[in-house]
Amino acid sequence: MEIAILGAGQLARMLALEAHRLGLQIRVIGPEEAPCGADVSVHHRVDLNDAAAAVDACRGADLVTYEMEHLPLATVEALAGQMTVSPNPRSLQVSQDRLFEKQMFAEMKVETAPYQQVDSLADVSSAIECWGYPILLKTRRDGFDGRGQRWLRSDADLPTSDAEVTDHIAEAPVKFRRELSVVAVRNAKGEFLTYPLTENRHNDNILSVSRAPARGLERSEAAVTIAQRVAEHLDYVGVLAIELFEVDGRLVANEMAPRVHNSGHWTLDGAVTSQFENHLRAIAGLPLGSTETRGVTIMANLIGTVPPLSELLSVPEAKVHLYGKAPRPKRKIGHISGVAAHHEAADVLEKKLVELTGLD
Amino acid sequence: MEIAILGAGQLARMLALEAHRLGLQIRVIGPEEAPCGADVSVHHRVDLNDAAAAVDACRGADLVTYEMEHLPLATVEALAGQMTVSPNPRSLQVSQDRLFEKQMFAEMKVETAPYQQVDSLADVSSAIECWGYPILLKTRRDGFDGRGQRWLRSDADLPTSDAEVTDHIAEAPVKFRRELSVVAVRNAKGEFLTYPLTENRHNDNILSVSRAPARGLERSEAAVTIAQRVAEHLDYVGVLAIELFEVDGRLVANEMAPRVHNSGHWTLDGAVTSQFENHLRAIAGLPLGSTETRGVTIMANLIGTVPPLSELLSVPEAKVHLYGKAPRPKRKIGHISGVAAHHEAADVLEKKLVELTGLD
Repeated sequence: MEIAILGAGQLARMLALEAHRLGLQIRVIGPEEAPCGADVSVHHRVDLNDAAAAVDACRGADLVTYEMEHLPLATVEALAGQMTVSPNPRSLQVSQDRLFEKQMFAEMKVETAPYQQVDSLADVSSAIECWGYPILLKTRRDGFDGRGQRWLRSDADLPTSDAEVTDHIAEAPVKFRRELSVVAVRNAKGEFLTYPLTENRHNDNILSVSRAPARGLERSEAAVTIAQRVAEHLDYVGVLAIELFEVDGRLVANEMAPRVHNSGHWTLDGAVTSQFENHLRAIAGLPLGSTETRGVTIMANLIGTVPPLSELLSVPEAKVHLYGKAPRPKRKIGHISGVAAHHEAADVLEKKLVELTGLD
Repeated sequence: MEIAILGAGQLARMLALEAHRLGLQIRVIGPEEAPCGADVSVHHRVDLNDAAAAVDACRGADLVTYEMEHLPLATVEALAGQMTVSPNPRSLQVSQDRLFEKQMFAEMKVETAPYQQVDSLADVSSAIECWGYPILLKTRRDGFDGRGQRWLRSDADLPTSDAEVTDHIAEAPVKFRRELSVVAVRNAKGEFLTYPLTENRHNDNILSVSRAPARGLERSEAAVTIAQRVAEHLDYVGVLAIELFEVDGRLVANEMAPRVHNSGHWTLDGAVTSQFENHLRAIAGLPLGSTETRGVTIMANLIGTVPPLSELLSVPEAKVHLYGKAPRPKRKIGHISGVAAHHEAADVLEKKLVELTGLD
C-alpha cells in the first residue's frame, strides 16, 4: 500500500520512518527542493497551491493524508474528488478557521474561551465593552506558534481600520493553570482511542517541553469525551490533537490540529504504539495499536540549534530524534525524550533534558 | 557523520532506520540490485569480493562497519588499511572460523563443547574413539542457520575421503537445557554494556522465538563475564553476540557473531536503547545508551511468508517489523514483538505471537 503525504517536513519524516516498519510505501509531496521528509521516502516536488499538479503527484497512491493544516483547501478537495483523503476535507476546513473551530466546540458542548467574531472596529469595541481589557485578537486563518495573534491591553493598542481586523476573532483571556493536549486516533470502522493527557510548556509560543501523562490527570474521562465528540462529529479518520487549558479543574478547548502533533512526539518512546504508527493504521484501515504508556515521558524540543550529539547522548536513558534540518532560530530541528518510572523520577529527567536543550 | 555498511540486508536496514534519528548518514554496500537496506539509505552496488571496488564505494565515509560475518576478509583488511573499520578485522577473522572461535573461548577460560580439529578421516576416527557416537561435524567456515553441519550417528554416516572433512571441526554433543545468547556492546573508550540474556528457540536451525530476559537468568554475571572477556580480548568496538547453551546451570559458549544479531531484535521494542542504536553509538565514538529492559519481551520471526498486515496488527500490543523482502521459503522477512510486564503475561503473549506467525 502506498500513502501520499501532503507536506514533507519532520512529521512526514516520522510517519515515513514508522511506515517502513509496517511495509507501507510513503510518497511526500511538497514544494521544497530537499525537505527533511524526503530523506526516507520518495519526494514529489509540487506547489501545493496547484491542485492539478498535486492530483498528478498523488496519482497511483492508495490514499492521501497530510502533515499540516496550512494547506489550500481547494487542493485537498480536488484530491478527495478522486481518491480517499484522510482526515476528510471537512476536518481540515474546520481546523483552518478559528471561528469554525470555536463554533464546532460550542455545538459539541465543549467549553472554550469566550469569543466573538470580529470583522470591523465596531466588533472590537463590542468585545472590549463586553469583557474589558485585555483581549486577544486572532486572525481566523493561518495562525500558528503564536503568529496571527495580538493582545489589546489598552486603547493605545486599538487597531485603526476595519481592514486590519476583518476575518478575526476576539477572545477573552483564560486564566489557566496549565496547558494540556489530548491526542486521539479513530479509524473508518469507528474504533477510537486516546493517549493520556499531555502537559505542555511553551517558550515564545513554541512548544518546549511535554510531560505525559499529565500529573494528576493520568486518566481524564473529560478529555476522552471531548476528543470523541469531535472525532465522531467530523467522521474523523487519523490522529487528531486538541489543545486544552486547565481552568479551575475544568478542561477548556483551545484549538484542534487534524494531524500528528508535536505534543504527541513522546509516544514514539513512551507509548506502545506511537501517534505516527496509529495515524498510518487508522488511515490504512488497519486495527489501532495500544496507546498504553511505558511510564511518565518527558519530551523536550530542540529549537534553533542542537548541542553536539555526544552531549545529547550523555543521558543514557534519553532518546534523540533529529529531523535532518539545518539549524535556524525558532526552528524545530529535533526532540529528545526519556521515560521515567514515576513523576518524581520524571522531575529529575526533565531537569536534565531542559539543561541539555538549553530551553529554560 | 557518514557510515558505510558492508551488506545491505535487514540488519543494515534496521541500522539505517535508527541512524536517521541520530542524524547519521548511512551508505549500504552490497551486490544486490535492490536490497532491502537500500529503501532507507544510499546504496552502492558492489561485489564485496572486489576489494578495490569496495574501497572505492566506501571512500568519503567516516567509518565502515558490516552486517554479516560472511565477508571476504581481504576486503575488510584492505578497507582497514585506509579507514576505521569496526569491529576490527581480527574480530571478523575469529568469528569466521569455528576453530579460531573455540580456541579463543578456551584461551578466555570460557567453556565450550568438547571439540577437535579435523582435516582427515583419521581425525574423525580419533574424535569418535574419544567420545563415541554421535558427533557433530562442522565446516570451519561459511556455516550459518545449520548449514555446513552434519551429524555422524553410526559408521553408516562416516565420510569416505579426507577431502570431504578438510577444514572441519568435530564436536561432542552438548546436552543443553536451552539455548541462550548475550548481546553486548563496547566502544573505543572501553565502555561496555550487555543486554540481559535472551532465551532462543530454533525451528529447522533458524531462530524462531526469543524471550528476554531469559526466565530465571534475569541477571547473569556469568554471561557478562564471558562477553566482556571476549570483547576486551579482541579490542572489540560495536555490538557483539555470543550464542550459549545452558548445561547443568553453566553457560557453554557456542559461537560469536561480530554484529547486531537476530536474537537482539527484541531490543527495538523491549530495551531503552536498541542493539542497532548502540552499535552505531559504539562505532561512532558516542556514549552508549541504556540497555535497561521495559519488561519481558517476546520476539517471533516471520519466516518464509507473512500473514496479512491486518492480522499481524490484531494483537494491539504487538510491534510489527517488516523488512521489505519478497517471501521465500526459510527467508527471514520480518519479526513481531511485544513487551509484557512479567513472565506469566509473556507466556500469553508468546502463544498469540507464535499462533500469528504460524511458527509452531
